[in-house]
Amino acid sequence: MSTANDSHSVGIVTPRIARFEEPLPLACGRDLPAYELIYETYGELNAQRSNAILVCHALSGHHHAAGYHSADDKRPGWWDECIGPGKPIDTSHFYVVSVNNIGGCHGSTGPMSINPETGKPWGPDFPPLRARDWVHSQARLADYLGIDCWAAIVGGSLGGMQAMRWALEYPQRVRHCIVIAAAMKLSAQNLAFNEVARQAIVSDPKFAGGYYQEHNAVPSQGLALARMVGHITYLSDNAMANKFGRDLRSGTLEQGDQEQAEFQVQSYLRYQGSQFSSSFDANTYILMTRALDYFDLAREYGNDPVAAFKHASCSFLVISFSTDWRFSPERSREIVDALIAADRPVTYAEIEADEGHDAFLLPIPRYVDLFHAYMRRVGESS
Amino acid sequence: MSTANDSHSVGIVTPRIARFEEPLPLACGRDLPAYELIYETYGELNAQRSNAILVCHALSGHHHAAGYHSADDKRPGWWDECIGPGKPIDTSHFYVVSVNNIGGCHGSTGPMSINPETGKPWGPDFPPLRARDWVHSQARLADYLGIDCWAAIVGGSLGGMQAMRWALEYPQRVRHCIVIAAAMKLSAQNLAFNEVARQAIVSDPKFAGGYYQEHNAVPSQGLALARMVGHITYLSDNAMANKFGRDLRSGTLEQGDQEQAEFQVQSYLRYQGSQFSSSFDANTYILMTRALDYFDLAREYGNDPVAAFKHASCSFLVISFSTDWRFSPERSREIVDALIAADRPVTYAEIEADEGHDAFLLPIPRYVDLFHAYMRRVGESS
Repeated sequence: MSTANDSHSVGIVTPRIARFEEPLPLACGRDLPAYELIYETYGELNAQRSNAILVCHALSGHHHAAGYHSADDKRPGWWDECIGPGKPIDTSHFYVVSVNNIGGCHGSTGPMSINPETGKPWGPDFPPLRARDWVHSQARLADYLGIDCWAAIVGGSLGGMQAMRWALEYPQRVRHCIVIAAAMKLSAQNLAFNEVARQAIVSDPKFAGGYYQEHNAVPSQGLALARMVGHITYLSDNAMANKFGRDLRSGTLEQGDQEQAEFQVQSYLRYQGSQFSSSFDANTYILMTRALDYFDLAREYGNDPVAAFKHASCSFLVISFSTDWRFSPERSREIVDALIAADRPVTYAEIEADEGHDAFLLPIPRYVDLFHAYMRRVGESS
Repeated sequence: MSTANDSHSVGIVTPRIARFEEPLPLACGRDLPAYELIYETYGELNAQRSNAILVCHALSGHHHAAGYHSADDKRPGWWDECIGPGKPIDTSHFYVVSVNNIGGCHGSTGPMSINPETGKPWGPDFPPLRARDWVHSQARLADYLGIDCWAAIVGGSLGGMQAMRWALEYPQRVRHCIVIAAAMKLSAQNLAFNEVARQAIVSDPKFAGGYYQEHNAVPSQGLALARMVGHITYLSDNAMANKFGRDLRSGTLEQGDQEQAEFQVQSYLRYQGSQFSSSFDANTYILMTRALDYFDLAREYGNDPVAAFKHASCSFLVISFSTDWRFSPERSREIVDALIAADRPVTYAEIEADEGHDAFLLPIPRYVDLFHAYMRRVGESS
């Protein structure tokens, strides 16, 4: 297990907060008043300011992508497998910026923050967001940090959607766009799972229409259920089979106390659900899944992904995983086909991996090697 | 649309109830005291009593498999596509028996029935059941109806599991076993979805530990959520895409009232959930999903499906559907491989169909033709 002292770890890191006084115009037509972004950086910005990498997070992610917050911190950031000295996003060469998106619940302005107009938490009245709103807020963070052009913008899942949106919104500010386990839009099945997750949350009586903070309540059962549903879609059937099979907690197949989880996979899911519900905000979860639902890369380009990608001027790396059924390789191939038709440079890899959608977070050798090799090329040109 | 007067309909049917006074020993070690089974029959039993077909229902099914309960009944029984004159299970030749299983909520003894020991509804104290308990209760119904040997036992999904269990428990009482869209046991992913469904139900405050009937309450939100989760797994990704795509109810992609279902698939799921929760019992749903979880055809045969099927003496027809990801064709091929190794006669068809697990209920031409052809052979030998 890696530690803060490991030579491949970025070590102990401290989040910083940037405050933006100028309101942010949002896709919904409203403005977000003065807001804060919490972020971490790893590595050093070079003199030419040409080695900066932006990491965009997925549904339940945040700014803490690598390293540790203290010497006794047990778990590193969520993408520590890929960020650090000697890792694909090599902090010996790159200056990495990882930000918690607005609408989040880990320190950036979001539903748990105080609405300056009411003096109360925003709660469900926080403006609905789209991926492009995150991109625009990240562009302001780039200005704040003095970064004109990112060497690369990297993201998995919803993070990959932000990376693609960056390539279209700010073509002159991105040299490489790295899109991992993502899609140009959600399928009806994806929408359906998100709907079930949201219904689980809003059905929890403690949700109180989203004003639970004012009642000092947490809709933890609804949020746990939402996470359980999500979690199943992150793992492949095979990954679950390998991890749990039909193993029983008690070791026997006699039906026992019906309230107890009897199969290992049941207690695992309950644990995942309860962990998540104690660390994540329900309104943020709803907001994030809605942003996912509404993401549709090519919609404003006449629903033509080729026309959309003609606005990009960066190079692309697209990676998918064979058993990912949330955003399957087919979805990535659609991105690649559109990029080729739009005459954009693109490298594509479909990684054989048993781990489903979660594979993008895991140290799968071929994935890590290929990602690393691509990032070396990014480094050479930066 | 078909009606009760249609020459391919069994017409108007009336359920009957059989009462059994002798307690039924259950797999859990407890006895079910005197109990009732509600059933329907279609067609006529021949003089040799050799043309009887047993239809076993799936998770949310019941005894009303074909025909109409009245002249203004809008919808026929759940398997009307396959049961009737000129249909695969041709009631001009066969005598069809369709029974609501014990533990059910459509008229057979189940959690909503009165527990004779307490004078109150059984509720969550109804004994846990396994598929074999249903098989044993169905065998008593066969005795009651004077049927020594079924020409065929037919079932889809959980119904197919009962059909296979019949072939092992009563080899001399089944000539043909027809197993559609089933599996020898659930995968970890199947278990996980069932767990989420049950957690949704028990998390509903109206569930009251299962004693909701005593409180005149119905955990309808939990049950609706459970059904939504289940429903997603019954449809393929493609089926959902074809049915809804990303179509919006309002026709525009502006984010509107956040409480409203915005995509068609969302309102469809909500409708399915609410319909189900007004017609199904939560304790039955929990009991049925547990029976599914615990079903493991070969467990008592040293986990060797070949050893298990050596106990069978009937012929088998196994059918799977290409896009069924609940019980995928791979699961059916495992059944077929074991049957071949056990030297049992088996016919296997993998039907190309876009409709996922639900395909077994639909009039897919190749499926219906093949099923019909097989049933003609069953008829010739009966």
